[in-house]
Amino acid sequence: MHTLPLVPRSEIEQRIHRLQSYLQEHQIDGVLLAQNVDLYYFTGTMQNALCYIPSAGEPVLYVKKSVVRAEFEAHVEVQPLGRMRELGAVLSERYGSIHKIGLELDVLPYATAHFYQKLFSEAEMVDVSFALRHIRSVKSAYELSQIKKAAQILDDTLTKVSSWLRVGMTELELVARIEYEFRLQGNINLWRMRGFNSELALGMVASGGTASTPTYFDGPAGGLGVSTASPQGASFREIKANEPILIDVSMIVEGYMVDQTRIAVIGELSAPILEAYEVARAILRKVEEQGNPGVAWQDLYATSLEMAKEAGLSDYFMGYGADQAKFLGHGVGIELDELPILAKGFSQLLEEGMVIAIEPKFTFPEQGVIGIENTYVVTANGLESLSVTPEEIMKIEL
Amino acid sequence: MHTLPLVPRSEIEQRIHRLQSYLQEHQIDGVLLAQNVDLYYFTGTMQNALCYIPSAGEPVLYVKKSVVRAEFEAHVEVQPLGRMRELGAVLSERYGSIHKIGLELDVLPYATAHFYQKLFSEAEMVDVSFALRHIRSVKSAYELSQIKKAAQILDDTLTKVSSWLRVGMTELELVARIEYEFRLQGNINLWRMRGFNSELALGMVASGGTASTPTYFDGPAGGLGVSTASPQGASFREIKANEPILIDVSMIVEGYMVDQTRIAVIGELSAPILEAYEVARAILRKVEEQGNPGVAWQDLYATSLEMAKEAGLSDYFMGYGADQAKFLGHGVGIELDELPILAKGFSQLLEEGMVIAIEPKFTFPEQGVIGIENTYVVTANGLESLSVTPEEIMKIEL
Repeated sequence: MHTLPLVPRSEIEQRIHRLQSYLQEHQIDGVLLAQNVDLYYFTGTMQNALCYIPSAGEPVLYVKKSVVRAEFEAHVEVQPLGRMRELGAVLSERYGSIHKIGLELDVLPYATAHFYQKLFSEAEMVDVSFALRHIRSVKSAYELSQIKKAAQILDDTLTKVSSWLRVGMTELELVARIEYEFRLQGNINLWRMRGFNSELALGMVASGGTASTPTYFDGPAGGLGVSTASPQGASFREIKANEPILIDVSMIVEGYMVDQTRIAVIGELSAPILEAYEVARAILRKVEEQGNPGVAWQDLYATSLEMAKEAGLSDYFMGYGADQAKFLGHGVGIELDELPILAKGFSQLLEEGMVIAIEPKFTFPEQGVIGIENTYVVTANGLESLSVTPEEIMKIEL
Repeated sequence: MHTLPLVPRSEIEQRIHRLQSYLQEHQIDGVLLAQNVDLYYFTGTMQNALCYIPSAGEPVLYVKKSVVRAEFEAHVEVQPLGRMRELGAVLSERYGSIHKIGLELDVLPYATAHFYQKLFSEAEMVDVSFALRHIRSVKSAYELSQIKKAAQILDDTLTKVSSWLRVGMTELELVARIEYEFRLQGNINLWRMRGFNSELALGMVASGGTASTPTYFDGPAGGLGVSTASPQGASFREIKANEPILIDVSMIVEGYMVDQTRIAVIGELSAPILEAYEVARAILRKVEEQGNPGVAWQDLYATSLEMAKEAGLSDYFMGYGADQAKFLGHGVGIELDELPILAKGFSQLLEEGMVIAIEPKFTFPEQGVIGIENTYVVTANGLESLSVTPEEIMKIEL
């Protein structure tokens, strides 16, 4: 049918095994997956389908469109979906009666979930979304290899940025060049996010005070955007000399993202801005040591808050004033807002194989955003960076 | 705060007025809007917020982030959101007790809607999503002017395509060039879709048999895509001579999209492919005449099915075999899957000002997809094309 690389069969088997262990432990009869990313993760195909994974035994992927493509790509049994109304009966016949069914209640639209509820009128619906996200947060060697490829492409592209940058070019011109290079390397141009209303194109590329424009986006940097209908990221503003140029971008390989931030400048940055940058790097060094398996997610955030405070920069950390973001990092994978979340209230523990983008940044109104971000994997010996780009500020002579 | 164009105040006032008429007619006390696109449409800002619009009186936008930006952009009263748990009480205090509240149950995640339900424990929740989409389907002169600007940029870019196209370039190279040009003109690179799991980057650009690769996407063309994690649209396949090159792309201005398809070829197309193209154009001519206010949406689809049948092309119309799409066109605006839907079962009537992308296409396995798409506005005298690109096949000499 086609020659695109398939997800290895062993990946799918291991993932289903981990999910089934969870289901058995929590006495859930099975899950009905509907979200495209979860379907891809647990079956190997992103065709329009529903997948029932029982707590024991073989899953079935019920496909609406395209059945032939799903048959080629999936590593689970494929059946045509048929009439949705009969799905409850079809599943009972195959798996016996279902008392407790897990659904992705964090993303399933209310009307859809309500419809499913009628299909399984005798079953209790439970939200398994955190469990699914938790399973997905621990990456395999296969997944890490995709993220590493993405990190290399990102780095290759950044080495060209210094030859493009000039005073008077717009933020949008810079973004368009980066996107163009990424796209030629197979970027899918879909920066998937799980959160309701969350959306992103490429990342946050903005210069000087424009980068500090507050936005709806739950992140440390904002950006003016090109219209009120896309109020974040790059704008038509021209890049000036001697101001921080924030290049926070994500490249995607086989669905997997790397997230990275570097700073460029045409000319020189002021001493306070440079000092804040060194504080951001010091925070990275500290949490790299701290980030061992068994450490609570929130502890890394607490460390960063403390270091920002010691440096007298609390007011500018991860945004300014009422628009401060309340986290230090986020999991990345097929979605940009995966687990873990390095924020207050998350007492869950780091595990080997979790992949986290950590992004200490400082926002100075009128002056801009300065900071750094690497994507890390948690290893037995702390955090190992998957980002390969040197951390020095990219300086272009005026 | 910034110099981006704002949505005119009169737009917001008219939109709220139309929604309030609906609420009064259906005895709904008010709606709580949460989705970013609906928020933008009814307030003028896309900040992170909830908007309560009562059936009579003034709406309030409760903003989480960024309050200052929302205050600058919105044409309704802005209040900081405060504690979500208190929102029910805050609203009752201001608007009196709420018995029936409208929500966007087609897009609101189940867990979120469930949380709102607790806030308004004495109120009945009703789904107003179709009504919201219906109001949004009728465009104002302001909205039409944005779509016309987008159509002009799309056309300007297409005139360059013939100088780029060459045998051996990949589909992805072509897409990257188009995206680059669009981006410099302010495209936001977010092709918003309302449907669960629906996503798109630029459109469907594919060549020859690759364009006929079936996908999950609910549309007439498929495409291989660059990976199984993005199984649609352009791929790394090289463009060959004498095959149809499908260029189905959307440009976005101030959030508003135009959707258009044209065909290019390097060399010549075969007679059967050219004949199918003329059938597609004949379908457009016929429905342009038919598409008057008061005509049922489904009638235009029925016309196209009949004409495809007369031409002996039913099996190839809007996809092939089990993967045929069951519609002729879709509304476009801030989302790519707006109302109206030209499909069986939609007996609703066309209204003046509705904007519809109509896309008769034929899919020939191994050979490719051929067809055409214009974006139209419904006028008192039938459909008027907002697309300005000549319909002739773009021929490049071998």
